[in-house]
Amino acid sequence: MEVDAIYFGPSTDMEYLAELRLFQDERVKGLMVTTGGLFAMTPLIYREEMRAALGPDVIYKEWADHEGFAGAFAAGCSEMGLGSDKNGKRSVIAFNDGVRAVDLIDMRAVLDFEWANGSDALAPFRMVKDSTELDYLRRAGGIADEVMDELSRFIRAGVSEKEVQDEIARLCAERGAPKLSFSPIAASGPGGSMPHYSRNDRRLRPGDFLVVDMGCKYRGYCSDMTRTFCIGEPDDEQRKVYDIVLEAQKAGEAAVRPGATGQDVDRAARAVINSAGYGAHFINRVGHGVGIAIHESPYIIEGNDIPLQPGNVFSVEPGIYLEGKFGVRIENLVAVRDDGTAEPLNKFTRDMIIILR
Amino acid sequence: MEVDAIYFGPSTDMEYLAELRLFQDERVKGLMVTTGGLFAMTPLIYREEMRAALGPDVIYKEWADHEGFAGAFAAGCSEMGLGSDKNGKRSVIAFNDGVRAVDLIDMRAVLDFEWANGSDALAPFRMVKDSTELDYLRRAGGIADEVMDELSRFIRAGVSEKEVQDEIARLCAERGAPKLSFSPIAASGPGGSMPHYSRNDRRLRPGDFLVVDMGCKYRGYCSDMTRTFCIGEPDDEQRKVYDIVLEAQKAGEAAVRPGATGQDVDRAARAVINSAGYGAHFINRVGHGVGIAIHESPYIIEGNDIPLQPGNVFSVEPGIYLEGKFGVRIENLVAVRDDGTAEPLNKFTRDMIIILR
Repeated sequence: MEVDAIYFGPSTDMEYLAELRLFQDERVKGLMVTTGGLFAMTPLIYREEMRAALGPDVIYKEWADHEGFAGAFAAGCSEMGLGSDKNGKRSVIAFNDGVRAVDLIDMRAVLDFEWANGSDALAPFRMVKDSTELDYLRRAGGIADEVMDELSRFIRAGVSEKEVQDEIARLCAERGAPKLSFSPIAASGPGGSMPHYSRNDRRLRPGDFLVVDMGCKYRGYCSDMTRTFCIGEPDDEQRKVYDIVLEAQKAGEAAVRPGATGQDVDRAARAVINSAGYGAHFINRVGHGVGIAIHESPYIIEGNDIPLQPGNVFSVEPGIYLEGKFGVRIENLVAVRDDGTAEPLNKFTRDMIIILR
Repeated sequence: MEVDAIYFGPSTDMEYLAELRLFQDERVKGLMVTTGGLFAMTPLIYREEMRAALGPDVIYKEWADHEGFAGAFAAGCSEMGLGSDKNGKRSVIAFNDGVRAVDLIDMRAVLDFEWANGSDALAPFRMVKDSTELDYLRRAGGIADEVMDELSRFIRAGVSEKEVQDEIARLCAERGAPKLSFSPIAASGPGGSMPHYSRNDRRLRPGDFLVVDMGCKYRGYCSDMTRTFCIGEPDDEQRKVYDIVLEAQKAGEAAVRPGATGQDVDRAARAVINSAGYGAHFINRVGHGVGIAIHESPYIIEGNDIPLQPGNVFSVEPGIYLEGKFGVRIENLVAVRDDGTAEPLNKFTRDMIIILR
């Protein structure tokens, strides 16, 4: 769709464009980009930061708390020629993923425009990492490797999921990466069947699988890594399921070849799990891009038929989730090399880590 | 406006309704509430958590990553009779503040409906705290008091803003409140003129004001408190500005009386600053409600003419912000008592804390 403007709310897009880290809340703020110029909208309390980040060549539309943002929005749009003309032709404004629906509703109430989904506006740029970005991502991945290695000595029966989370935070901070990519997941026993398990109140017991999914930020760039630990010797089913997931993960990485698409990688990993009869228990895409956002393009998913490009960085993370029993997930990040193959950003063993203490 | 349904995305509303803490991202999930029933929409990976939280009386519309959410949304709405009828009459669906604009755009592309801003749908309930909620808020406020007291011994010239932030986190965790209401603000010297200053790279110097704004969560309920410290003896301008802000803060609290509105409290505090000639440097509303969200109703702002009610809890936080020089803010939370007056939830001194070490 042809668009006349793109409006960015607080988001990783804004970090990428202007190193502006703003919090999304009821004080609506953002940046409108048109072919004719830019305007930044901000409540007065962020005035100083916005001007420092965006400089003098931007038109500022500032509003006081009691005024609300709608007037500033309408005034900025009017100055940029956005709205509807006397023939009823309406501008098309794309919105990125940092805008709240309630604010779009309020904007539409004061200005007549067509909207478009602008989630992917910067994806073509953001998904190709340059050599500096790749170095940051490698370092973030290397820290995750070290943390998993340390955890293999920390984890034992009796330790709680929360203690594992806290240890991850401590180990990352100790390595110069105090900001985590996301709240770490330590999902033991039946909790492991929930890919994004968010509780942390269970203690590890002999016979448990423990799915640990964690990542840290290095200079703003995320790592994201999952390993599954076994507390004590695995039983036959655990061993079988683990081996299927491991084979699927390796098949996914191996499918990163010149000309391959995200869909090809998804299919390669999924085929292993499907043919082993566990297809119904693999309930998510194989992966997602990673950069300053923990989830970004390219998505490794059925339907994504865009060829992968050198500089793409994404996760390969198949899993099998057995409700009421356990889950297994193994996740590496990979970068696409110039020759089209996968450079793993995680080197720590993918073999089952059996905790015998 | 009459609405036919309300759709809640991941938000404190969802926490309030169902103790569901979901992360807002590209995997769209939420709860549609209509007079005829409920449906929950979820990607497969959150299926188990959603069903555990919402129980068997809800219709579930689940979707796989590669399908996207739009089909599940349309199917759920169709089952609830939401959309347009054969006469072109369209249902009105309100959206809460947990929905992304890009998702509203995609919903509107598959279903014909009118939208409404549902930010305040639960405000009438959430803004009146019951005695249990008040107890949690008092305890959260008490922890903030203790932390400020400890900080008055920790802060000294040479300490960095980041060290102050880290100490706040440590002191809260030590008191059983490891989750903070927001990333604490430690804004020294010229940084103090930015109410939500988000950097932390400066070290305290003699002659600085340091604005510390922090809060923790106790059983999910937030505290929010600001004090301004002076490193060494204040100069005349610092003393004068501090005294104006202190008088304004006290005037705001005193304006909490039977029948008073949020606007009355805003005006009472603002009048002090205006009449001292600093009105242009007080660039925000006087306060905001606090509960499980750090900003919620009632807002203490010009234009809010709804009488305050017993059980309302909000901040009174006037400030003066002098760009390039310094800022002063003093903030207490108060609860409205049954007799209509203000119970401060923070007891730590509001007098200037002069650090002479």
